This record gives sequence, C-alpha cells and structure tokens, in this order.
Amino acid sequence: MANYFNDIAPIEFEGPDSTNPLAFKHYNAKEKVLGKTMEEHLRFASCYWHNFCWDGADVFGGPTFNRPWLQSGDAMERAKQKADVAFDFFSKLGAPFYCFHDVDVAPEGDTVKDYVNNFAKMTDVLATKQEETGMKLLWGTANVFSNPRYMSGASTNPDPEVFARAATQVFHAMNATHKLGGENYVLWGGREGYETLLNTDLKRERNNLGRFMNMVVEHKHKIGFDGLLLLEPKPQEPTKHQYDYDTATVYGFLKEFGLEKEFAVNIEANHATLSGHSFHHEIATAFALGIFGSIDANRGDPQLGWDTDQFPNSVEEMTLICYEILKNGGYTSGGFNFDTKLRRQSIDPADLFHGHIGGMDTCALGLKKAAAMIENDFIDNAKSKRYQGWETDFGSKVANGDYTLESLAQYTEQQNLDPKHVSGQQEMLENMVNNTIFR
Amino acid sequence: MANYFNDIAPIEFEGPDSTNPLAFKHYNAKEKVLGKTMEEHLRFASCYWHNFCWDGADVFGGPTFNRPWLQSGDAMERAKQKADVAFDFFSKLGAPFYCFHDVDVAPEGDTVKDYVNNFAKMTDVLATKQEETGMKLLWGTANVFSNPRYMSGASTNPDPEVFARAATQVFHAMNATHKLGGENYVLWGGREGYETLLNTDLKRERNNLGRFMNMVVEHKHKIGFDGLLLLEPKPQEPTKHQYDYDTATVYGFLKEFGLEKEFAVNIEANHATLSGHSFHHEIATAFALGIFGSIDANRGDPQLGWDTDQFPNSVEEMTLICYEILKNGGYTSGGFNFDTKLRRQSIDPADLFHGHIGGMDTCALGLKKAAAMIENDFIDNAKSKRYQGWETDFGSKVANGDYTLESLAQYTEQQNLDPKHVSGQQEMLENMVNNTIFR
Amino acid sequence: MANYFNDIAPIEFEGPDSTNPLAFKHYNAKEKVLGKTMEEHLRFASCYWHNFCWDGADVFGGPTFNRPWLQSGDAMERAKQKADVAFDFFSKLGAPFYCFHDVDVAPEGDTVKDYVNNFAKMTDVLATKQEETGMKLLWGTANVFSNPRYMSGASTNPDPEVFARAATQVFHAMNATHKLGGENYVLWGGREGYETLLNTDLKRERNNLGRFMNMVVEHKHKIGFDGLLLLEPKPQEPTKHQYDYDTATVYGFLKEFGLEKEFAVNIEANHATLSGHSFHHEIATAFALGIFGSIDANRGDPQLGWDTDQFPNSVEEMTLICYEILKNGGYTSGGFNFDTKLRRQSIDPADLFHGHIGGMDTCALGLKKAAAMIENDFIDNAKSKRYQGWETDFGSKVANGDYTLESLAQYTEQQNLDPKHVSGQQEMLENMVNNTIFR
Amino acid sequence: MANYFNDIAPIEFEGPDSTNPLAFKHYNAKEKVLGKTMEEHLRFASCYWHNFCWDGADVFGGPTFNRPWLQSGDAMERAKQKADVAFDFFSKLGAPFYCFHDVDVAPEGDTVKDYVNNFAKMTDVLATKQEETGMKLLWGTANVFSNPRYMSGASTNPDPEVFARAATQVFHAMNATHKLGGENYVLWGGREGYETLLNTDLKRERNNLGRFMNMVVEHKHKIGFDGLLLLEPKPQEPTKHQYDYDTATVYGFLKEFGLEKEFAVNIEANHATLSGHSFHHEIATAFALGIFGSIDANRGDPQLGWDTDQFPNSVEEMTLICYEILKNGGYTSGGFNFDTKLRRQSIDPADLFHGHIGGMDTCALGLKKAAAMIENDFIDNAKSKRYQGWETDFGSKVANGDYTLESLAQYTEQQNLDPKHVSGQQEMLENMVNNTIFR
Ligand SMILES: [Co+2]
Ligand SMILES: [Co+2]
Ligand SMILES: [Co+2]
Ligand SMILES: [Co+2]
Ligand SMILES: [Co+2]
Ligand SMILES: [Co+2]
Ligand SMILES: [Co+2]
Ligand SMILES: [Co+2]
Repeated sequence: MANYFNDIAPIEFEGPDSTNPLAFKHYNAKEKVLGKTMEEHLRFASCYWHNFCWDGADVFGGPTFNRPWLQSGDAMERAKQKADVAFDFFSKLGAPFYCFHDVDVAPEGDTVKDYVNNFAKMTDVLATKQEETGMKLLWGTANVFSNPRYMSGASTNPDPEVFARAATQVFHAMNATHKLGGENYVLWGGREGYETLLNTDLKRERNNLGRFMNMVVEHKHKIGFDGLLLLEPKPQEPTKHQYDYDTATVYGFLKEFGLEKEFAVNIEANHATLSGHSFHHEIATAFALGIFGSIDANRGDPQLGWDTDQFPNSVEEMTLICYEILKNGGYTSGGFNFDTKLRRQSIDPADLFHGHIGGMDTCALGLKKAAAMIENDFIDNAKSKRYQGWETDFGSKVANGDYTLESLAQYTEQQNLDPKHVSGQQEMLENMVNNTIFR
Repeated sequence: MANYFNDIAPIEFEGPDSTNPLAFKHYNAKEKVLGKTMEEHLRFASCYWHNFCWDGADVFGGPTFNRPWLQSGDAMERAKQKADVAFDFFSKLGAPFYCFHDVDVAPEGDTVKDYVNNFAKMTDVLATKQEETGMKLLWGTANVFSNPRYMSGASTNPDPEVFARAATQVFHAMNATHKLGGENYVLWGGREGYETLLNTDLKRERNNLGRFMNMVVEHKHKIGFDGLLLLEPKPQEPTKHQYDYDTATVYGFLKEFGLEKEFAVNIEANHATLSGHSFHHEIATAFALGIFGSIDANRGDPQLGWDTDQFPNSVEEMTLICYEILKNGGYTSGGFNFDTKLRRQSIDPADLFHGHIGGMDTCALGLKKAAAMIENDFIDNAKSKRYQGWETDFGSKVANGDYTLESLAQYTEQQNLDPKHVSGQQEMLENMVNNTIFR
Repeated sequence: MANYFNDIAPIEFEGPDSTNPLAFKHYNAKEKVLGKTMEEHLRFASCYWHNFCWDGADVFGGPTFNRPWLQSGDAMERAKQKADVAFDFFSKLGAPFYCFHDVDVAPEGDTVKDYVNNFAKMTDVLATKQEETGMKLLWGTANVFSNPRYMSGASTNPDPEVFARAATQVFHAMNATHKLGGENYVLWGGREGYETLLNTDLKRERNNLGRFMNMVVEHKHKIGFDGLLLLEPKPQEPTKHQYDYDTATVYGFLKEFGLEKEFAVNIEANHATLSGHSFHHEIATAFALGIFGSIDANRGDPQLGWDTDQFPNSVEEMTLICYEILKNGGYTSGGFNFDTKLRRQSIDPADLFHGHIGGMDTCALGLKKAAAMIENDFIDNAKSKRYQGWETDFGSKVANGDYTLESLAQYTEQQNLDPKHVSGQQEMLENMVNNTIFR
Repeated sequence: MANYFNDIAPIEFEGPDSTNPLAFKHYNAKEKVLGKTMEEHLRFASCYWHNFCWDGADVFGGPTFNRPWLQSGDAMERAKQKADVAFDFFSKLGAPFYCFHDVDVAPEGDTVKDYVNNFAKMTDVLATKQEETGMKLLWGTANVFSNPRYMSGASTNPDPEVFARAATQVFHAMNATHKLGGENYVLWGGREGYETLLNTDLKRERNNLGRFMNMVVEHKHKIGFDGLLLLEPKPQEPTKHQYDYDTATVYGFLKEFGLEKEFAVNIEANHATLSGHSFHHEIATAFALGIFGSIDANRGDPQLGWDTDQFPNSVEEMTLICYEILKNGGYTSGGFNFDTKLRRQSIDPADLFHGHIGGMDTCALGLKKAAAMIENDFIDNAKSKRYQGWETDFGSKVANGDYTLESLAQYTEQQNLDPKHVSGQQEMLENMVNNTIFR
C-alpha cells in the first residue's frame, strides 16, 4: 500500500517539448514570473478527500477504483496507511500544500469521544508526515455534512444538539489546523440549506448560521489563529438550495451578521458555474467586495448540472483568473487548491498524477499569459480611457455626492446634456487577450 | 382607436361554471377572504408598456399586433390616443391599479427639455384619466435602458453625463409618481451590469450605483413621498450580468450602501427562475431579510432561458406565494402587477383580456387556497414541531450566544450527545398542500 | 423485517375530505372514468430499486434510511427478506404492478454462474409472491450499469466481453420477465454514452448498440414474448452524454437500425426535463412518431440539474399528460411506473407510503380532469378550426404532393396570395384548461 | 455610404507579433497546412443579415448602430447601397465567401410580385458585385420567419397559403443561389415549431415539413443544382420548441421522410449549446450519422440562455472542431460561416472587422493545432488501443451478428467471462491535447 505509487517517480519539469506524460510542461516551481517564483504565486494544494477517501462510486454504480487502504482492517490502521499513501503522492507531485477534512484523516468512531481521540492521534501523524516531507497545510476543515446526523444541516439543523455536534467538530478541526500550521480554515456548508420551503424556517436557520460563524470568529481570535477564515459558496447540491449560494449572497450574509471583515470566500470554479456565473465573475466580484480569499480550481462540465469537480484544463479561462489575482496583489494566505475528482473511469494510479499535472500546467500557463497581459496592460488602459469622464471635475462631483437628484436634473436641463454612446470594443479586447495567449 | 376595445364589455365575475371566456371565474373583487376583500388582498395592476407600447416584434421578426396608436402621426397625439386606449382597457378589466415608465406615456422628444415638457403634459393627462376612471397608480418608474445612450448602463455608465440624464428622468418620474398618488416607485436596472469584464470596472460601477440610490432616497424624503422604493432584481438579459441579480444579491448591495431600511424588492416570477431560484424562494427570502415589497407576477417558460413574461397560470405555485404573503401580513403598499407580455401570436384585442383574466383568476384561486391552508395551518404546525429543540433551555442558550465553540464542544463531549435524525416529511407535506388545493 | 410495515394498514380510498394522510383522496381503483376503471386506465407500478435497494446515501453522505434487509447476513437470505418487505409494501399500497432489475432481486454473486443461479432462484420466489399477493409485473429489466465492469458502457463498451456479460444479463432478465408474465421489457442505457469524445468511437458504439437491440428483438420473438420492448431515454447522468438522449433521438436510432416497429419508449418525466423538453412534449412527440409505450412518472426539481426522481405532485401538469394519453387511446401494455426516490430526509417507513399516495392521487386527479377536458373537447375544436385550411381542396393538394415548388410558386404569384395571420389564442386555451381543472 | 469603411484598409496577415488590431495574426490565406491552403481548408464566409441588416436593437432597446443604408429613402436604392457597403466589407476582410437571405438583399415590397421583381433585380446586382470583387456565394437561403405572416411557422403554418408563400420564396431563393453559383442552399426553420402544444397538431405539422423538404429536393434536381441542401438545427428561440432541435433530431426527421441522402446539416455552435450539447458533440454526431455539411461558427455565452451569436474566440474548442473535420476529410462544399452578431455596444465600423478578424484567427489557430494533433495522432492511437477487442475474432463475430442473445449468454457462461475494467485515461488525453495547443 505504501508502495501504491511505487512505479511513479517524482514529477519533474521537462518543458513544453517533453512527451513524457508524467512531467510538467509548464509548471516550473522555481521559475520567476513578475518577480516571484511560480510556487509562490500559485500556492498549489492537493486534497485528501477525493484523492484518498473516494472509491469511484457514483449514484448509479459502485466503486471502480482499487484503493487498498479503504478496505477491511482496523480503522486507525487504515487511516495511517491512507496517510502514508497520501503523503507519498503529495511529495511526488511537488505541490507545496495539502488540505483535509477531519473525517478524511481520522475515523469518526462510535462516540464523540472516539472522534476526539482518533482525530488527535491522526493530527500527530500528520504533523510527523509534514515534518518528514516538508508538506504544508493550506487549510483544514470539518466535514459536517456526510454523517446522517447532518442530513438536515449542521448549524442550521432543526435540532440544536446537531448544532452542538457540528460545533465540536469545528472546534477540533480549527485547533488541529492551527497546530499543523494551516494557513487558512475553510467552512463549506454542505447541507446548510433546504430541500423544501414547506418544512423550513428560513429566518431561524439564517440566524443560527450567523451565530455559528460568530462563534468561529471568537474561537479564531481566542486561539490566536492568524490565517483567513473562508466560506465556500455553492448554490445547490447536495441540497436544493444552499445559503452560501454565491459570492454576492455570502457578502450579504456577512454584512447582516457583522462578519464582513472576518471572513473571505473560497471560490470554486464549478460552484461558480452552477450558480449561473462565470468563474471569472466570482473572482472579480470577491475582489470588488473585498472578500477574496482562496480558490478551488476544479471546473464543471458546461453541459452538466452537477458538480463534476474536474481538473482545470482551460488556459484561456485561467489566464483571466490569474490576471485578476495578479492585478489585485496576488494571494495572501490563499492558493489554488485542487478539490478535484478523477473521472470514475480513470482507475490507474498514474491517473491521479495526470489529473494534477494537467491542472498545474494549466494554472502555470495562465500565470505566464496573465503576466504578459500585465506587462502590456491593454485592459487597464482601455478601462482608464473608458471611465475617464469620472475623473473630470464634473464626474468626481457626481461620484462624491455633490449633486442631489434635483440639482443634477437642473444641471442636465440647463446644459441640455446629450451624451453620445461610445463603442465598448468587446471584440477587439477579446482579440487582444487571445493575441497575448497565442503568441 | 378609442374604440379599439369597443367589442368588449367590462369583465364581470360569473363564477367557476361560466363558459364565457371574457368573465372572471374566481376573481370576485368584493368577496371577502380572511376578513378582507380580494381586491384589497391582491391589489392587481396592469402595465402600460407590454400592453400598449409593444408591437409584437421579437428578435427574429417584425410587428404582428395591429396597434393603431403606435403608427404615424404627431407624437403627442399618439400618446394621448394611447392613454385613451389604455384607460379604456384598464377600466374594462377591473384591476384597480396600473403602472408605467415615463417614456411609455410621453414621447422622449429630441432634447431633454422636450422630454420634460412632454412628460409634464402627459402627467396631467394621466391625472385626468385617473380621476375619470377611478384607476390608481401602483407604481411609476423611469425607462433608462431603451435609449441608445443607455446601452452601457444608466447610473453605472462609463460616462457621467449619462448618469446625469438618468438622474433627470428618475427625478421627473418620481415627481410624477408622487403627483399621481403612486403607491410605490420602482427602479429596474435594465442595463446596470456588464457585457464583458474586460472593459468593466466593477467596483466603480457598484459605487456609482450606490450613490445613485442614495440620491433617490434623499429625493424621496425631500418631496415627502411615502410609498416604498423598490428595486427589481433580474440576473441577466439584456446584459450578460446585472448587478441586481436576485434578492440576496440586492440585500448585500443595500447593506453595503446603508440602504436596507430604505428599499424593498419588487420580485418578478420570471426573474426569479432566470436567476436559478423558485419564485417561492425569492418571496420567502425577501421576507426573511425584511425587504419584501411588491410582485411582478409574470412567469417564464420552464424550458426557455429568456424572459418570456407570460401570464401566471399555475394555481399550484401561486397558492404557496399567497400563503407566504398572507403569513407575513399581506401587502402594505405593494401588489400583484402584471408585467406580462402576450404571446406574439395572440394578436386579437380580446387576447389582452384573456391573458389578464387568466392571471387574475390564478391569483384569486391561489389566495383562496392559501387562506384554506392558513385556516388549518399544518405548515406552521410542522415547523413548530420540527424546530422545537430550539425552544428548550439548551436550544435558546445556543441561539442566544451563551456558548462559545469551546464550551459547546465541552458540553457535547461531557453529555456524549448523539442526536438522532428525524424525518423531514417532505412528501407528506406536499400531499397536504395538494389536498388543500384539490378539495 | 417482515414486520417493517406492520404499523401501516392497507391504503384505502377515503375521498377528498379525509384528513388521514395514509389514505387515497382521489385514487379510487374501481371508480369508472370514461368507461374504464381508474385501475385499468392508470396501471400503476412501484419499483423495487429505489424503494428497497437504496439506503439513502448520496454523493456527499452515507445511508440515512434504516433498511434492515440491506444489512449483514447471507446474501440470498437478505434477498428473500427484501422480497417479503417489498411485496408487503406493494400489497398494502394497492398498485397492481411492480417493476424490477435483475440485480435488485437477486445477488450478483462472484461469477456469472452464481448470477444465473441466484437469479433463477429468486425468480421462483417472485413467482410465488405474485401468486400469493395478486401482484403483476409491469416490466422487468437488467441492470447493466452499476457493476464496475460496466463503467464504460454495456453494449457500447470498448471490450466485447463486457458486451457479452450484458447480453447474458439481458437474456436472463428477458426470460425471467416472460416467465413472470411481465407485460413489457425495458432497456435503460445507463452508461451507453460517453464521458469524453477524446476516447470515444461514436460510430462503432452506435453500431454495437444497434446490434444489441436487434439481438433483443430476435430473442423476444424466439421466446414468444408479446409485451412491448421499451427504450428509456435519458440525456445524461451518470455519463456526460447518453445515446438515448430523448424521444426524437431514440426515434432516429430506431430508424437507422430498422427497429422502429419493434421498440417503443418508456418516458420519464425527469429525463424529459433534463433533456430540455417538457414532460408533455416528450409524450406528444412519442405519439406523433408512433413509439409511445409507457411512463416513469417521477419528476425533477425545476432548479436542479440532476435526476431527483421525485414523486409527481403537479395535477396541472399531469392533466395534460393524461389528456394526451386518453386522446391517443390509452395505455396498451404500458402504465404509470413510479421510478421515484424518497427525499433522503424522509426516513420513516410511512414516508414510502406518503410518496406513493401523493403520486397516485396526482395521477388520479389528472385522469379525472383530462376526462372532463375530453367531454368538452375545446382543444380538439380549436385545433380543427386552426388547421381547417388543410382540409380544403387547395390544402389537401399541397399536403398530398400535387404541387411542386415551382407550380406552387406560380399559383401563389398568379393568385397574388396574401394570407393574414390569425391569433393562436394561447392565453385563452390555457385559461380553458385551468377552468376545467379548477371547477 | 459607399465610404462607410473608407478609413479601413484591406486586412493583411501580419503574423503573431503584430500589434495592429486590424491585421490577421494567424490567418494567412495562402499558407499551406497538411497540403492545402488555409483558405481552401477554412472556406470562410461573412453574412449579410447581422452585419448589414441589423441596427443594434434588442428586446429592451432601440438601434445603437449608425447604418445609413437602413435609413429613409427608396427601398431599392437602399438595397443597392447596402450591397455596395457589404461588398466593400467582404472584399476588405478577405474571406472568400458570403451568405444571404432573400430579404436581406432585396425589399419585400407589398405584393408577391414586388418581391419577385425586386429579388430578381438584386440578384443581378449581386452577380455584378461577385464578378467585380471575386467574392463567391457559400450559400443562399430564404427568410420565412420575419414577416408577420410567418408568425406561426412557414411550411408548418396552420394556413396552407402561408406554406405557399414560403414555397414561393424558397423557389426564388434556390434559383438565385443556383444562378449566383452558390455552393449550398440552407434552410433554417426559424418558426417551424410551436409555442404551445394546446393549439398544435404535431403530426400534421411534421408531415407538412416533410412534404416541403421533398419539394425542395425535387426542385434541386430539376434545376441541376449540385450543392448541398442543408438544414440548420436549433432547439428553440424564437419559438418554444423547434422541430430541427439538434442533429440527432434532424436525422430522425430525415429518415422518416426518406431524405437522409439528400440533406446534410449546417451546425451552429450557439445552437449546439442551446440544445444541451457541446459544439464538438454536434459535429462528431453529424459525421457519425453521415450528414455533416457546413458550420455557422458563432458561439453563445455560457451563462446565457439565448442566441448571442458571438464571434468564436476559443482556440481550445476550435482545435477539436478542426480535428474532427480534418479527420473526416475536410469540407466538401461547406465552410465556416460567421452568422455572428456584434455586441450591441460595438458601434464603430472597425468593430465589424475586429469581430471577424478574431473569429478567423481563432479558426486558423484551431486548424494549425488540429494539424499538429493529426501529425502525431495520439487520439487515434488511444482509440485503436481502447477498442482493439472488437478487432479480434470474437469481437468481430459479435459485431457482425454471429451471436444471438442466447448463444452469447451460453458462451459467456461456459467461458465464465469476467472482463476487467480498464482506465479511460481522460485526464491524460486532455493533457495531450493541451500540450499540442500550447507548445
Ligand atoms: Co470545493
Ligand atoms: Co465542488
Ligand atoms: Co418586471
Ligand atoms: Co421580466
Ligand atoms: Co430518473
Ligand atoms: Co426511469
Ligand atoms: Co444563432
Ligand atoms: Co446560424
């Protein structure tokens, strides 16, 4: 089992002309782009759950993957074997970070005490693994959606004891994340939502969610955790409607409960598109609202209405994402996490590497193309020119509140204002982006 | 022209057994339901624009309707003829309210002065018409999206002079609405959004939109208008993305600019579904957030991705809408407006009546069925039982903030909490709703 | 286990005023509608799989249902217990039919021989159960999508040995269906499709699918099975694209392989909407193409992009479905099957009954409302009037091919034809439907 | 007017390093790729309608473009001016082909005779223009959807006289296309569909559509037109449902009426995605069914549910399209037509060039990348290996019909077949595509 990936050597950068499928063509960790290494810019992380806890089952069929560590034996033993395999993979891949849920790494056991003990032991195992391999933790989180007790939500459950069980998991997961030097802590409200409005008290559930998030903030400060707290929006699936629908919805929630300075968002590409937005839109909106945090880079399928969590493979899309991030100063503690699932038919050990290599090369290309866009910043120039009226005396006064509706109407009538419409030049700008990508 | 609807007599209530297509089967204005008349509950309004300004053209074809008042002649003359026809229709239909945009009722003219003069004259015409017919104005609004000058937005336009032109229209439209006794004022940001992020400064446009809305609030108070200010969410169309995407997004916007006590939402059924939500969801969310205002009852087609603005015809859906409204105390100044378009093939004068009669009967049935649900409120009972844990001592403490994450984790571990999951009974509740509707 | 439903008595018809949730309000099996009993019209069936093989797990969480017969013990013993519970449920519900997949009722075992033996034994068990309870089999089918060997398709698998394994299952499932007096045999190509075109030979897979279906036809005739062979369209899920996308696509496939007289379609409401069509559209299209067979009545959620398989609860929709079926002569060997899943939170034994009762009452109401529509057939009248031109001498000649493009152009020019457009009266017809439903 | 594009010089190829927005970076007409010039491979066409007949109006607003030739004056005069401007544009752009509808180029007039005369005159004008400029006609078509008479369909209209008017237009448009040396003739059934099933006789309309298409085939042979007849699928918009929904649906229709050897499809990227398919899927399906003809390259917006008809700008997508076409032997008489609309805000004359230049460069890059894929055909290799079992003796026998269901089941049981599942390698193949594109 420890030898699950024995046939696979650590992945190296071999450049675009390499035909070795198990090598990077574009991701060269130490190569500098705009003054920082790719590794520092991109801050890649792999995930524990889809890679090491999922067996390939879907709603219409059973396990297709051969994952020996998921099979019979003592639960703690299996958890340790899983950690061995996971860190072997992480190290060979060469992404600097990983991410986990509490119950990915430790068995839940039969009682809350089992849970606490198992998780504590496995936290020590992870600490040792981190030391041995140099891997770092991008973020930790608690899975408060898989156990049947959470079928009707965690902090939004009709039963306060379920809220309490969820609080217990988040308490321990935050502590473990802090102990392991995690750079962020994530909350994804997997079942914080509803199946039907007929049995749902929206206002109460929202208030309880607000209370829970305030408890998380208080605890963060109490333990001195200085990473970001991140909410991960998703519109639906598994539930019909989830409260953290998209970035704009999360922003409203944060404002309602006075949390907008305490939380940022972890934006997933696939959740963006499920919510009716482009991935780019969600990133740009998060920056505009001041709540950008981190990214789950996994994409969806444009024709499918569920979360396929595929590896990113569009350089065209990723270039705009990287441009947006670079323009806004880059990641602070966030990074590109791969919350990615292999296709269920990709059953070979090597497939796990293929997926990640492709995803990392896609992001690396996106970064390089975005850097080229910034070096000749036609986007910025076009925007400056387009909005220049707002930098005039009149524009500034309007923006700054020097006019009332009435005084502005009077001005308009007196001046007989008749502004002309001006081309938005969308096609030309799209061409210029492509000309940068395909040079 | 004044005789356009001459063949059609005022619409009367004839009851469910009537086979007269030009009669109400269920809407009986003076019939009491839960202590108020249907008219008082439902507060129906017809719109000026789709009914009297649209000629039946769509993107792939020209006018199909014969609307004499849209054809050649002096613009003010045509505007007056349009008013004659419109009020003839309104009166015969028997809905107590109507709604309009400034440029629906008056010609824009060539200059801003023309606009102001024409609109002032037509406001007087409308005042006279209201007096003659007893019609009331549910809300007024300004069309700041059709003129080419608004192609890149109104208050979010790159050009501050366009902002100023929009302010001028809104200034006059608010004044006219106030003068005509309008009960609300609506803002729909038809092109307040973007076509491409490549040429868009999201943050600046958002700030300008915030400034504009604050100007509207100031003006409202200045003129002593005491109706509601309403924002109408729509996710996209005509633009790729609109800033007032859905109710939750509008809420976040209002909170950002300190406007959440000054604005409510005008929820359109078709806009709800275009944004990925059920109509019911948008209504329930607006109430949960304290920003419910009014409704545009027009629905979409479940298979189509654009705004078809069809007349509501699902009693099953409308029953839940009416239940939600009744449970929350009913409309204050809002009402059910029909922002509805005939199908382009429905070219007969009578078709305008068929559409409205069907829509009004659908709402009337929804109201009666909802009243029956409230008389035996199994929904309320089911919710009370489901959330009863939150009314216990422990539940209240959790909700009220008496626990920290840590103290709640300690309690959970000490008590070895192991809550059981309980059926959500969705199917049974759905059956009970149907049993009420089909009794 | 045999006592799983002991608390529940057989479901009786108690009429619309009953408040007993475990009674029919509208489905009265022996009540006559248009000369046949409801039971004869509706031909209800329950399914084995979602009701008795599913444990409540979804992609994000584990089992929520307590299904003792799915738990540990000898596989054949468990299969027999499952059959006991299933037939207890079927009998108490009072639907005359059931449906199953081979592996729902018998353990697959380790080898193909195990499979054959287990299935043969369980077929005998089912025969006995049918005799004891009077239950009949609406259709049987083979599950050739859940076992990992089918991950890349069954008859469209890249490996012909997988095709052979699938053929073996279908051979035995057809024989069992025939032996049990099944009235139809269904094929749902769960993974007959592709995940990516990059590794897919569309033409070869299509040909293999065609060959497989021809083998099925040959076998049907060989064994003298005289029920319908049914293909069940579904556009996607589990795979990205499925070859039996929708009714029109299936029709093209059948025509290509000369099968259009041998197969009909089993239309599922949820699959219709996933493919971008209304449920009504799929039914009407199947009749227009002469390939209507049977129905899976389970609906989707209008906001969700996956197969939720919910119980039907819209009488408004079901009325049009029943109208279409009645107008076309009713079911022959098909019926309304409930390929329905409980919501994952509906964990009580009674919930299985609530779901089915609601679904059956919805269909029963749909049937009665449709019968009322037929008694005063305004739809038929409107269509006759609308197309009357095609019954004239000129219309008949055009339709029958008496004109060429040229001679018709000449006629048009000579006659200077200038046809006027006529109202489609959609709103009025929609009102008339509602007036029939809500009388 | 003839000087509308005076500021713009003919577009030249300047290579990827050019920063001139009005130059090709990748489309080099005479450059050879796999033995043919780019011009011969790509066979670009511009369209008359969106470029020269549309004024920028959308459903929510009026004209934004300044198109002098659409404004007042004698209709035939304006048509000639339009032709001047159009051919000036076509010539400067350097695409070898154009496409038109009858009513794009000639005024409809008041009577059918006017139509015939005007169209005849303008056909002569076009012939002269073609001669002067060297432009060729990729295809012609008739617009039988914009005039109000077609609001309920053309060949599927309830009124046979409308069928006759449509036949007249198609008769003349086919003749004109033939006369102008057009290489194909296209039929897009803009309103051949329904708004509501309540007033629609599906079977009759389908039969009339079938009759119409047979008339078209007969006429083609009669006049000796040897180009392809092309049907353009579209699922909806303007109507709720269109009969030519997608390629698979069209195939079924053609088979029903014995037309599958007479028609091919003109696949539009945006129509593909509106119908729930990828553009690639539609192309691959058309080749698999033997009905591929030509392409409208205009794409949609992934978040919008209507036909935005944008210029193609994804090289990643276009590479797979070009690969599919090259593998199947390239275009015969078809080509890449731009049925593209400028964004409504792109109001400058230069914007028309920007859009087309970007689209042509995108296709040119796609072609070159596809050629590189074919030179090292890992896709073909992967497929050969994946399906190799079907080339064995056993596989061939199964595919060729040497087994019955029974004999194959017997073989499976005797051999105790237990095939193993094998990785589909999707991620690796996706990486290899990207490695080819970004080298
Ligand atoms: Co994620
Ligand atoms: Co996801
Ligand atoms: Co509206
Ligand atoms: Co609307
Ligand atoms: Co289904
Ligand atoms: Co089904
Ligand atoms: Co199109
Ligand atoms: Co097209």
